[in-house]
Amino acid sequence: MADPKTPEPTRRSERSRQAILTAAVELVGEVGYARLSVEAIAARAGVGKQTIYRWWPSKGAVVLDAFVELSGGSQPVALPDTGNLKADLREVLRATVKELTDPRFELPSRALTAESQMDPALSQQFVEAVLRPHLKALQERLRSAQRAGQVAKGVDLDVAVELFVGPLFHRWLLRTAPLTSAYADTVADLAIAALRPTARAGAPR
Amino acid sequence: MADPKTPEPTRRSERSRQAILTAAVELVGEVGYARLSVEAIAARAGVGKQTIYRWWPSKGAVVLDAFVELSGGSQPVALPDTGNLKADLREVLRATVKELTDPRFELPSRALTAESQMDPALSQQFVEAVLRPHLKALQERLRSAQRAGQVAKGVDLDVAVELFVGPLFHRWLLRTAPLTSAYADTVADLAIAALRPTARAGAPR
Repeated sequence: MADPKTPEPTRRSERSRQAILTAAVELVGEVGYARLSVEAIAARAGVGKQTIYRWWPSKGAVVLDAFVELSGGSQPVALPDTGNLKADLREVLRATVKELTDPRFELPSRALTAESQMDPALSQQFVEAVLRPHLKALQERLRSAQRAGQVAKGVDLDVAVELFVGPLFHRWLLRTAPLTSAYADTVADLAIAALRPTARAGAPR
Repeated sequence: MADPKTPEPTRRSERSRQAILTAAVELVGEVGYARLSVEAIAARAGVGKQTIYRWWPSKGAVVLDAFVELSGGSQPVALPDTGNLKADLREVLRATVKELTDPRFELPSRALTAESQMDPALSQQFVEAVLRPHLKALQERLRSAQRAGQVAKGVDLDVAVELFVGPLFHRWLLRTAPLTSAYADTVADLAIAALRPTARAGAPR
């Protein structure tokens, strides 16, 4: 982005794009998704409404892009794969806890989660654009562990990933207890134990 | 309730109470919690507003009682304890899936979950009144299994219960994939494997 060879109009465009995405996330947190308007995003970002419509067809499209950006951008998600499954997954779940409890992320995410309850189409778009790439990356890490013999062959990895993220999400969404790094570690350790070849077979190998 | 010795006014009161609770749940599903009014509940239930205020101090109190009633009433929650941990927990999680996907329950629950995101006080009341008794009962069942040597001694049962319910809730709320009995069984089996003494110790006993 700071590349000196990038022409000025491109850099100006990128600044506007970032301002629009930031404004969209902030406003979702402040007024909720339903009451959010493209006008309000434009005003907060200091651009004209036409600038937004030149790049995105709708309010929903801006908001989805904003959340994709917030959760790491549209690059493929890559998880650590050091061979140490426990260390890697503790790191992943700690990062998830950090993101879920980050004030920049928390209120907008709760607002979008709330709106998604009553709007299954929005929910589906949100899951596919923002959540699915992270679930797929986690699944890939578990598949690699399966190849390394650390995860039992028969485990359904679609279910396995929810064993890691479900407890975190449950605690975040329902506020059943504080969402901490220690909780992330315990969930990671238990979920890994659930997938272990010996645990599944019920006998040592 | 059909006890012939119950005096007529008591039976009439009980009918009104049930009509009010049913109306409250239905209306939460239809208009959401924020737009719900005591007037609307009274009209739907065919009672006067004063009847509601005689029994409950506020809209929130009616709705909470209605959800307590919907999820099994205010009797202490008792889970099956046959000694067969896998059979018992599969039964519990299948019942949870059935409840979460029951149309009478689903829309009102989503509406309340959505509202809870923006209203931490409501969220806390809902969790304590409706959810906590179920989590406590599940924890008791796991404690019994711990005494029977089926769950490792060191396991934090506060975390363990979320390993069972978190994945179900995650799939229900985000609609990542269909929420089925087969999913309930797989989650139960994996979560039990996570807690097993041999799985935790990493060696057979």
